[in-house]
Amino acid sequence: MSNKIRIGIAGYGNLGRGVELAVTASDDLELVGIFTRRDPASIQPASGAKVYSYDDAENMADDIDVMVLCGGSATDLPVNGPQFAAKFNTVDSFDTHAQIPAYFANMDEVSRKAGKVAIISVGWDPGLFSLARAYFDSVLPNGDTYTFWGRGVSQGHSDAIRRIDGVKNAIQFTVPIEEAMDAARSGSRPQLTTRQKHLRECYVVAEEGADRAVIENTIKTMPAYFADYDTTVEFLGEEEFKSRFTTMPHGGFVIRSGVTGSANHVTEFSLKLDSNPQFTGSVLTAYTRAAYRLAQAGEKGARTVLDIAPAMISPKSGEQLRAELV
Amino acid sequence: MSNKIRIGIAGYGNLGRGVELAVTASDDLELVGIFTRRDPASIQPASGAKVYSYDDAENMADDIDVMVLCGGSATDLPVNGPQFAAKFNTVDSFDTHAQIPAYFANMDEVSRKAGKVAIISVGWDPGLFSLARAYFDSVLPNGDTYTFWGRGVSQGHSDAIRRIDGVKNAIQFTVPIEEAMDAARSGSRPQLTTRQKHLRECYVVAEEGADRAVIENTIKTMPAYFADYDTTVEFLGEEEFKSRFTTMPHGGFVIRSGVTGSANHVTEFSLKLDSNPQFTGSVLTAYTRAAYRLAQAGEKGARTVLDIAPAMISPKSGEQLRAELV
Repeated sequence: MSNKIRIGIAGYGNLGRGVELAVTASDDLELVGIFTRRDPASIQPASGAKVYSYDDAENMADDIDVMVLCGGSATDLPVNGPQFAAKFNTVDSFDTHAQIPAYFANMDEVSRKAGKVAIISVGWDPGLFSLARAYFDSVLPNGDTYTFWGRGVSQGHSDAIRRIDGVKNAIQFTVPIEEAMDAARSGSRPQLTTRQKHLRECYVVAEEGADRAVIENTIKTMPAYFADYDTTVEFLGEEEFKSRFTTMPHGGFVIRSGVTGSANHVTEFSLKLDSNPQFTGSVLTAYTRAAYRLAQAGEKGARTVLDIAPAMISPKSGEQLRAELV
Repeated sequence: MSNKIRIGIAGYGNLGRGVELAVTASDDLELVGIFTRRDPASIQPASGAKVYSYDDAENMADDIDVMVLCGGSATDLPVNGPQFAAKFNTVDSFDTHAQIPAYFANMDEVSRKAGKVAIISVGWDPGLFSLARAYFDSVLPNGDTYTFWGRGVSQGHSDAIRRIDGVKNAIQFTVPIEEAMDAARSGSRPQLTTRQKHLRECYVVAEEGADRAVIENTIKTMPAYFADYDTTVEFLGEEEFKSRFTTMPHGGFVIRSGVTGSANHVTEFSLKLDSNPQFTGSVLTAYTRAAYRLAQAGEKGARTVLDIAPAMISPKSGEQLRAELV
């Protein structure tokens, strides 16, 4: 019999594969199975884990301590988040910032009723960046916080370009502007506009015969996505596109500039990630420990990373943490 | 009647003054009094707070929700930490890393018996840097963590120089070496020696007639403090010393370089502080909320920052935090 925390993964895209990597690399966690809406027979996980259909999960509540929900925030999690939370302790990466209060309320009601714990919005933003913003806000209350993203691939912006007529493939990099970051760090507490903070670099494969000038203009004038930014568009061939963009790097910066009495202070947290889904999956995996431990302690309901003590996500004991890391 | 958390400050040096600034700037906190071993009449706090002797604290357990202990770790806290913890919820900045497990055990026993909460080793290192090390270790388990300090004043090293014969005044700056930080961030996971990570810059006012060559050699060969570092010594006049070194800046970096599957990641947390005691005081002040809330919830015993959820140190509600900062 195993004393490991038994993990299920619901959804097997890039994020699910990232969680799979992290769970199988952790001595205190055991991957029980991967759940998919596709035909389970069509999936051969790298780890050799068993694959089940979503419907099988219904009967496996006793076999899994924590289900990691790896679906998207737009359409998957609002529907299947509460479904899983009614049966399992869950950890998810719900990342539509404006909808977090509503999603929290929904997950809280369902998981509370089921006597389960649901940790929502885990990852790096929301997630580790939320932690940085909250700690910085508390320890330096008189100040301004600046969040910068990139250099990295924005899935939403890449999708928006791919929906344009005549576009065969596209990828969009969000690029933080060095001058704006330096201004944020300077102690001058500048007001920075959207345009001053980030550039958007677009790499596009056009369909044969498509009007590139029209595509470029459609991108650059797209409301919300690109119109408020300095945007560059570069067209390239399909082969070059495939060879240049093989990974999903990302990262970013949370910078707070604040004052106590007579003194200025700058606090900064940054990430430079070669693989966004692998890193995000690793963060979700760490929070499965918290979901399990909270549930073991009889707690229930929804939580965000702000409600969880750092020691709860570590495989190390309190004694070890105090001796090695405090 | 006030609904504010009632704070006492024990010890009125630079750190106590930092806490005073932070408490009086917080709408949800009330400074009840400052406690000193000196003659209370000799102290006029900037805030106009009442001043009491340590002995008065004995009878004020009902007037103070949290006592912030602002004494030093070498001789003050090991003695008066447990004394205060037997009467009050406490927050302190005990920072002798090697002694933290023993101090924790001592404070835990006393505060548990008294039904109080004692949060130890709060500040930035230990404190915020401990948080960074623990979060990074959990979300990126396959990796190496590097802590760099500075550029900033080390009190311990300045004191060590001042104890040398012929030295009238001295200050020591710890300087992180840029090449070592870049190596830590490179993903190459280098083994860095003590000498490779930090320089030590010493500024010394010599007594008239003192042998500067002897002083310089005594500094540079001092075991533990300077012998393992590249150390520079500059002599200067008393007036110049006073005009150049008027503040107590400090800061540092926690960098982790790690791997998931095929990808490298770098996580980094840094501080650039114009006033070490003011910033440290501000962190201690934030943790008074956690001490109060834990005690209100019936908890008792010692805690470090790793045992405390970030939301516990914020004046903001869970709803506010989710809407504004997650």
